[in-house]
Amino acid sequence: MNYKPFIPPERILMGPGPSNIHPNVLSAMSRETIGHLDPEFIRLMDEIKDLLKYAFQTSNDVTFAVSAPGSVGMESAIVNLAEPGEKVAVCVNGVFGSRMKDIIERCGGAPVVVEGEWGRAVDPSSLEKVLSQDAGISVVAFVHAETSTGALSDVKTLAEIARHHDCYTIVDTVTSLGGSELKVDEWQLDVVYSGSQKCLSCPPGLSPITFSNKAVQKIKNRKTRVQSWFMDLNLVLGYWGSGGRRTYHHTAPINSLYGLHESLLLLKEEGIENAWKRHSNNGKLFCGELNSIGLKPYVPEHERLAQLITINIPDGTDDAYVRKNLLEKYNLEIGAGLGPLTGKVWRVGLMGYSSSKKNIDLCITALNNSINNR
Amino acid sequence: MNYKPFIPPERILMGPGPSNIHPNVLSAMSRETIGHLDPEFIRLMDEIKDLLKYAFQTSNDVTFAVSAPGSVGMESAIVNLAEPGEKVAVCVNGVFGSRMKDIIERCGGAPVVVEGEWGRAVDPSSLEKVLSQDAGISVVAFVHAETSTGALSDVKTLAEIARHHDCYTIVDTVTSLGGSELKVDEWQLDVVYSGSQKCLSCPPGLSPITFSNKAVQKIKNRKTRVQSWFMDLNLVLGYWGSGGRRTYHHTAPINSLYGLHESLLLLKEEGIENAWKRHSNNGKLFCGELNSIGLKPYVPEHERLAQLITINIPDGTDDAYVRKNLLEKYNLEIGAGLGPLTGKVWRVGLMGYSSSKKNIDLCITALNNSINNR
Repeated sequence: MNYKPFIPPERILMGPGPSNIHPNVLSAMSRETIGHLDPEFIRLMDEIKDLLKYAFQTSNDVTFAVSAPGSVGMESAIVNLAEPGEKVAVCVNGVFGSRMKDIIERCGGAPVVVEGEWGRAVDPSSLEKVLSQDAGISVVAFVHAETSTGALSDVKTLAEIARHHDCYTIVDTVTSLGGSELKVDEWQLDVVYSGSQKCLSCPPGLSPITFSNKAVQKIKNRKTRVQSWFMDLNLVLGYWGSGGRRTYHHTAPINSLYGLHESLLLLKEEGIENAWKRHSNNGKLFCGELNSIGLKPYVPEHERLAQLITINIPDGTDDAYVRKNLLEKYNLEIGAGLGPLTGKVWRVGLMGYSSSKKNIDLCITALNNSINNR
Repeated sequence: MNYKPFIPPERILMGPGPSNIHPNVLSAMSRETIGHLDPEFIRLMDEIKDLLKYAFQTSNDVTFAVSAPGSVGMESAIVNLAEPGEKVAVCVNGVFGSRMKDIIERCGGAPVVVEGEWGRAVDPSSLEKVLSQDAGISVVAFVHAETSTGALSDVKTLAEIARHHDCYTIVDTVTSLGGSELKVDEWQLDVVYSGSQKCLSCPPGLSPITFSNKAVQKIKNRKTRVQSWFMDLNLVLGYWGSGGRRTYHHTAPINSLYGLHESLLLLKEEGIENAWKRHSNNGKLFCGELNSIGLKPYVPEHERLAQLITINIPDGTDDAYVRKNLLEKYNLEIGAGLGPLTGKVWRVGLMGYSSSKKNIDLCITALNNSINNR
């Protein structure tokens, strides 16, 4: 065992995340660590809360970053909002909807699945039908941008349907925050979580999350304790909550929060609408270019994400060879298909700092050469 | 909202963690992010596993870093090893023993408390008594180094007693790993977790953990599903496990793992026995110096941690004023007391990179001036 310092290769990250990180953010990661109860760190936390409110387009007071990856944001949302025995409608049109269902079961909730098609948006009429047939459902959970398929769902409409049936909403915005239009307050969403490593272009390991006042009230009035100590919002609020003194809960990942702060400053500087527009434009440009080399996106245009595009792998093409070639010859990472889409699609991310004209050109060239010059 | 990049003050971190970070580790944090399934990243993960085995002094194949703070290491250990209804003896002599009890309850386990005194080691005879009286106990949980009190418990003896009663052991080594003698294999411990930000001097956010083969078998043969999706070892092993191809579970905190790798290289270079010795020597030196300025450690010498020393706050001394003065005049962070020790003790950390003669001198001078020159 004679290991050396690890010097990573310089990759162009066009997979389903992480995306490439802006140099300012990387630089922030290596600033001197300070204590998690230091007054200066508390000030940083307050700024992060404000900046996250901007990113989520919300004035929710309970807006912060969970000290763990996006999956823990998902689990935090569910274990806090759903009590054992509670019926939760969960829309499943890819891996992350399935994961929500799994977590609902594990916390004693009763999932009612709204079945969807992989590669398609969640169908609002399917949700309406399920909620109309079962008046006992109190929470609706769905994914905004399905990272496993590249489909974008209509959060505004789905949330309207949920509200019409007096249901709370849990919305997964891991791949959409900062990349697709998302208006937490205007669309009246209840619990919304994301990840740091997608369109925010921050290193992975944090999960931004926001709770409406209505959701916070439900959680404060739970009949049962939240099954997870780490994720229990009632405890976390002592540390991230506002007003009064902060009390120790766990040790926050200080340097990762330096990175998140810096990435949110960049988002603020660009402007959230401009960031949405850039992602949207680059997504369209990329699909146009794909077409010119004979490749086709998997998802229909009006349900397609701009920041994560699934591409049909042409018949007779060696999936693994192409991805390996991209990585080894071009230092370019793209993603494989997941679940039923394994071997059928590639997943190309144009997220955050990775969403640029330069990367589109490189990816098109690399794909074209790798497919045709074997 | 016109925020600027956050430039942290240069603190000397002598609280209960985080400790100061070696420049090599900080520098590693800002290296280019790569994908969490990149072959180069997989190689890094393998190296981290080997280096953690060295730190834990184990050959356990299931040794890795949980992608979240030490509290999640604690929760992971408990929710995996204990099934609902299972009786777990938990030794409580401070905040972290209490937290274990809380988590045992939340996952449906039945905690049997071995009451201990705050500021003292866990009493082996108390554990023996509890286990002798209740043959239904199958797991014993305790803390090696109680960060809330500064007490060091005799893990080897406690584990022998547990084994004698056919119990599995869960050992919290958050503050001891790399700082106090710890031999996972020789002492036959089952599940042992730690934190990155104490004696390893890595930024907070990761929880090294190791499972004996016996523990892994128990977990694989569970009758019930682990209540947490994120912490379920059966799923995590698909990503961190050895042999065959790694499958996606969650997105690992890439840059934090760069930092951990670098800090483990430094530990390997120093040698684990030398690191234990350095902590031990500096702890003794500090206590000698404390004595010379009329201050007294709270914990009896033979049960006292070297890397986290609680000091009796002298009568009539303003706790908060002293800590504030240290921070503002000396950029020196020390910790407050927790729980019943609030206002009664200070907690001074001499952990990892912070455990140095230079820091001892500064802290003694700063304490002496702050107490006497109000």
